[in-house]
Amino acid sequence: MAAHVQDVFMLFGDSITQGAWEPGLNGFGERLSHVYARKLDILNRGLSGYNTDWGIPVFEQCFAKHTEKHAPKVRILTIWFGANDACIKPSPQHVPLPKFIENLKHIIDMVHSPESAYYSPFTRILLITPPPINTHQRKADLESRNPPLPLDRLFDITKAYADAVKDVAVEKKVALVDVWSAVWEAAGKEEKALARFLNDGLHLNGEGYAIMYNELVKTIAEIYPEVHYDKLGYVFPPWLEINWDSPADSLYVVNRESA
Amino acid sequence: MAAHVQDVFMLFGDSITQGAWEPGLNGFGERLSHVYARKLDILNRGLSGYNTDWGIPVFEQCFAKHTEKHAPKVRILTIWFGANDACIKPSPQHVPLPKFIENLKHIIDMVHSPESAYYSPFTRILLITPPPINTHQRKADLESRNPPLPLDRLFDITKAYADAVKDVAVEKKVALVDVWSAVWEAAGKEEKALARFLNDGLHLNGEGYAIMYNELVKTIAEIYPEVHYDKLGYVFPPWLEINWDSPADSLYVVNRESA
Repeated sequence: MAAHVQDVFMLFGDSITQGAWEPGLNGFGERLSHVYARKLDILNRGLSGYNTDWGIPVFEQCFAKHTEKHAPKVRILTIWFGANDACIKPSPQHVPLPKFIENLKHIIDMVHSPESAYYSPFTRILLITPPPINTHQRKADLESRNPPLPLDRLFDITKAYADAVKDVAVEKKVALVDVWSAVWEAAGKEEKALARFLNDGLHLNGEGYAIMYNELVKTIAEIYPEVHYDKLGYVFPPWLEINWDSPADSLYVVNRESA
Repeated sequence: MAAHVQDVFMLFGDSITQGAWEPGLNGFGERLSHVYARKLDILNRGLSGYNTDWGIPVFEQCFAKHTEKHAPKVRILTIWFGANDACIKPSPQHVPLPKFIENLKHIIDMVHSPESAYYSPFTRILLITPPPINTHQRKADLESRNPPLPLDRLFDITKAYADAVKDVAVEKKVALVDVWSAVWEAAGKEEKALARFLNDGLHLNGEGYAIMYNELVKTIAEIYPEVHYDKLGYVFPPWLEINWDSPADSLYVVNRESA
């Protein structure tokens, strides 16, 4: 069985999180796995197609209660929803904007409220805005399906959900990674130009993930510098620091008292 | 804290394992993270520069004892050493061949021997041979350093360590992923041609990892088909299978009795 030797960086969200290790994309999951190697385990808790209504029951299972002393600490948590919540009716993925806002606050309170069974004061939260929608690309993609599907997301609606994420971050005093604005600005604020950053009008491509990853790392460096990968040491020593004459002296480093 | 919701695919080895999420390489860590998303957590337990002598104390901490009932099950374990053990004297990384063989057997026995405190009969082990060395590339790389370093690995010596890995796999009846032979054959059995698969004469580049990943997945499909990613379902349901009228009915799936 896998012992707890490294704390955790948990990525919680929808398909844009789930797909963040896709080969060729240099997604943020892959890149975090690389830079946090031997420091934090990056756990993929991305759920394709999920909205916050469905995400909360999953989060109640993925995030341990504070009474579960043996569980690895979640040092950093990204919460990245909105792309599906912002679907328009009659999509079953649609979550009304007020409910979306309530859900995001609920997830944050689960982690940061001292009254919560999941209270985890050491978990740094990063709230991420959904990327802007390119309805031209999205419409073409959906019309190409068999059977063809009607447009399910609108530019302005997703923008409203992105704005709500920003407001929640301010109100709840957690860090914000504003992917919506960063990608929108990179596209010169022109919807069709978003095709450079989205592969189907909805999901980030390699260039889109590059913008997102840079924003994420910049935000960690600014808001939570103590958990930036450059500030965390290896759990097990670099091989040049091992005591070669008596290796065991330097290699037993994990406190297993809770085992 | 992070609850145990997914079992684990643990990658234990040296730098060739640690670096398996490096952006641009499509390494086997990244690719496994992608195909096992929502099925198994891929844990990087690669340790740059380590040999088996140093790896064993680390493994005793990374692999839980069978009395630690709350720990996630390790469903698949790759053990990939030899590249450093095969260093020639006076390198501190050198481990004599008989000791290397003894160490590999010890790691396997830790997991598979009913007498072991770490006994885990459900863990499928894959033993991996180190890649062949291109001494031309390696020599040039070491000579370019400041100060220049002498050649530390030889083609035939690493081959002997790779052969030993194969023998141990047969003796201990665990699956073998013979990267040494696969890369050697792809290079037309010509040492200089290995430059196509190695970036410095020692570490796999993208083409090298592609060969390794294909061999690994083929071996899982043949020897342990029940844990091939196509045979494992998502822990949490695909969104189209959620009961939209009463989502909680389908979304509470993790047995937390041990919590």
